[in-house]
Amino acid sequence: MATESKSLGTLTAPRAFISGLDEHVGQEVTIKGWLYNLRSSGKILFPQLRDGTGVVQCVALKNTIAPELWEALKGLGQESALAITGTVRADERAPGGYEIDLRTAEVFNEVRDYPITPKEHGTEFLMDHRHLWLRSRRQHAILKVRHTVVKAVRDFLDNDGFTLADSPIFTPAACEGTSTLFEVDYFDGEKAYLTQSGQLYNEATAAAFGKAYCFGPTFRAEKSKTRRHLTEFWMVEPEMAYATLDDVMTLSERMLSYIAARVLDSRAEELKTLERDPARLEAIVPPFPRMHYDDAVKLLHKGHDEGAMETRFEWGGDFGAPDETYLSGNYDKPLMVHHYPAEVKAFYMARDPERNELALGVDVLAPEGYGEVIGGGERATSLQFLEEQIALHQLPKEAFEWYLDLRRYGSVPHAGFGMGIERCTAWMCGIEHVRETIPFPRLMNRLRP
Amino acid sequence: MATESKSLGTLTAPRAFISGLDEHVGQEVTIKGWLYNLRSSGKILFPQLRDGTGVVQCVALKNTIAPELWEALKGLGQESALAITGTVRADERAPGGYEIDLRTAEVFNEVRDYPITPKEHGTEFLMDHRHLWLRSRRQHAILKVRHTVVKAVRDFLDNDGFTLADSPIFTPAACEGTSTLFEVDYFDGEKAYLTQSGQLYNEATAAAFGKAYCFGPTFRAEKSKTRRHLTEFWMVEPEMAYATLDDVMTLSERMLSYIAARVLDSRAEELKTLERDPARLEAIVPPFPRMHYDDAVKLLHKGHDEGAMETRFEWGGDFGAPDETYLSGNYDKPLMVHHYPAEVKAFYMARDPERNELALGVDVLAPEGYGEVIGGGERATSLQFLEEQIALHQLPKEAFEWYLDLRRYGSVPHAGFGMGIERCTAWMCGIEHVRETIPFPRLMNRLRP
Repeated sequence: MATESKSLGTLTAPRAFISGLDEHVGQEVTIKGWLYNLRSSGKILFPQLRDGTGVVQCVALKNTIAPELWEALKGLGQESALAITGTVRADERAPGGYEIDLRTAEVFNEVRDYPITPKEHGTEFLMDHRHLWLRSRRQHAILKVRHTVVKAVRDFLDNDGFTLADSPIFTPAACEGTSTLFEVDYFDGEKAYLTQSGQLYNEATAAAFGKAYCFGPTFRAEKSKTRRHLTEFWMVEPEMAYATLDDVMTLSERMLSYIAARVLDSRAEELKTLERDPARLEAIVPPFPRMHYDDAVKLLHKGHDEGAMETRFEWGGDFGAPDETYLSGNYDKPLMVHHYPAEVKAFYMARDPERNELALGVDVLAPEGYGEVIGGGERATSLQFLEEQIALHQLPKEAFEWYLDLRRYGSVPHAGFGMGIERCTAWMCGIEHVRETIPFPRLMNRLRP
Repeated sequence: MATESKSLGTLTAPRAFISGLDEHVGQEVTIKGWLYNLRSSGKILFPQLRDGTGVVQCVALKNTIAPELWEALKGLGQESALAITGTVRADERAPGGYEIDLRTAEVFNEVRDYPITPKEHGTEFLMDHRHLWLRSRRQHAILKVRHTVVKAVRDFLDNDGFTLADSPIFTPAACEGTSTLFEVDYFDGEKAYLTQSGQLYNEATAAAFGKAYCFGPTFRAEKSKTRRHLTEFWMVEPEMAYATLDDVMTLSERMLSYIAARVLDSRAEELKTLERDPARLEAIVPPFPRMHYDDAVKLLHKGHDEGAMETRFEWGGDFGAPDETYLSGNYDKPLMVHHYPAEVKAFYMARDPERNELALGVDVLAPEGYGEVIGGGERATSLQFLEEQIALHQLPKEAFEWYLDLRRYGSVPHAGFGMGIERCTAWMCGIEHVRETIPFPRLMNRLRP
């Protein structure tokens, strides 16, 4: 239970952060944070403090600090809030390389019985306590990697001449069937649907800006409980005017390798915490292998013949998770499978001029079984073709009139892709489930906290 | 109407972008874009091309280009898609400083009767054609400024030690009344609500990361049609552990001045297009004036006495738009009004220890009548106080148990704020209505395109 904050000394030293202790060796500083762990050894206490930027061990000697401070520190529970003042000392044996000789402290909140202890907890318990679980070293590391992935994506696109053009979350009319759309009561009985992709809008902004991207949350009301699915996830979608399938593959390659390099560069400590082998990320450099769908099918057949794949894959279908894992299993970098059957791709995909049954699309399959991290391709430019497709798919044409305008007024070859941030983060971190890659995951059966 | 693309020459020169023509003076380049305007003068055509990065004028002489190219170019309508090849020439009189002597071209899409012409159009017509309107010089400029605002915010916070921690869009239980919340059908009859603020979640992430922020779309089902309101808008919300009202004011000052400096630095051309006086942005430097709510009320009374304000403001109320405009009218930088009556602020705000009726909150009022761009303050730390507030406001306590955990386990003084991106962008641009500051605005009566 919480108690009143009490001051146990004067905190006059300048405030420092644990990540910046290297600049304060030999100096007295104040660190404000929370008790991460407390060991004692006779007349010495070793409170470990975390402040959000790192964890540092402090050393408090009974005979050099005030008796009431000793008593107060001794009884503090995990996650008690306290600020400490002491002198920074470099120590090779210390986890972060530094320790602090504690002189005084102020306790803001004495905590007893913090729910998340070093012992094992079940997943549901941890998910119910997500607001506290975020403080643990592993979750902290994952979300730091997430931040770096987001930053890397934005920096990469911004430096490459893309203009950020956020697509709307509220969309009218159900464009591709309502089964996986979340419905919202808009005004006066009107229904809106939460976006599943900014794709169509990006085609408008690419025509305005040449290269544009949207980057925001997207929603899928899928009744699936796999480790790869969230009902709410973040997606970046770049789109380029005057671009082809080949340009999409090159951009994918460049962006993914940039992300991996940034994570390696700025999150080495976190990768260590996650026991992620950096060699996995170092391997993500261009060129990535490119494989025609036909050849991918042949490979799956070979896998079946050799007994590695249970069922024989039929040409024309979309790959399932086991197929993707098998295909990418031979590579330590992402595999780009292109020229999928048009049947399994969206209606707006451009066709292979030499084989009309194929779409100029690509899926980028991450290694290690992480599956599709990027999906994209070239879009159809012909007004007539799209009108036919809309009729064929029995879509409400009036809802697409604005989209068809893009073919009436200045239609050009254009292409782009979408990348899910959580799946990319899970891959970078080498973790099993995407639910740990977003601060407050939303799943079919989870809307809290 | 669109026609088939036709090649009218060989485009072998390397592709360039209009924004980078300075690097290609004297060279032959290919520019891929759309026809922005076409003038002719006897045996010379002056097609203006836009490619998303800028607009350049080309010069085509009848006697130096192929006769069929001359014929094709001559008849092109606005927004026809074409790629041109020619030699870049510096020309002081040209708008961007360069012209291109056209040698050949390829037309991808011949356009007739582009709906948006240089003549005046009504707002509803333009909003209906938002997907095309984005191509116009003014809308282009506004969204480039928006991108810079977003980038500036992220860079500022990232460089200041904040961790990005996206808050969820789907939230359970209606926390502050359902009247302005959008309701979503989740699964199995459960209802979810679209977030209005990541505030409560940020308090959890600030306790995990020390300094954290969320930055995403937020939603208000307000039945209001003012120039300042959208139903879907983007908000950035930083939150700091071990921080006070004063820290929030300092952070606001630093962030807003950083944004203004970045816009001045990278969007000079766009500000010119928007006829925005850069002096307005240059004035946004710390320190910003700070004014106690009591003093703001006195100022409003003075305004009333002098006949500048119609009604006499009553102490205890929240400011309306005219009040905000009057208060900020004396300053060329944002005015920070602090210590509002607790009654008009959220239940979780900390109280002034010396005057319990006041909340430790601040509103940052932009000059020129742009109103509140930032609202924030210090949060209550006491478990007991918050339990009382939740009971007093008749809120469902079980929905807040996770939030109350933050006071049970490591409660510390903490503070933060929220800033709306569209309102900030409108202010930077000096434009009237926020609907132009987002690619696809959503209003009470607008869900399309």
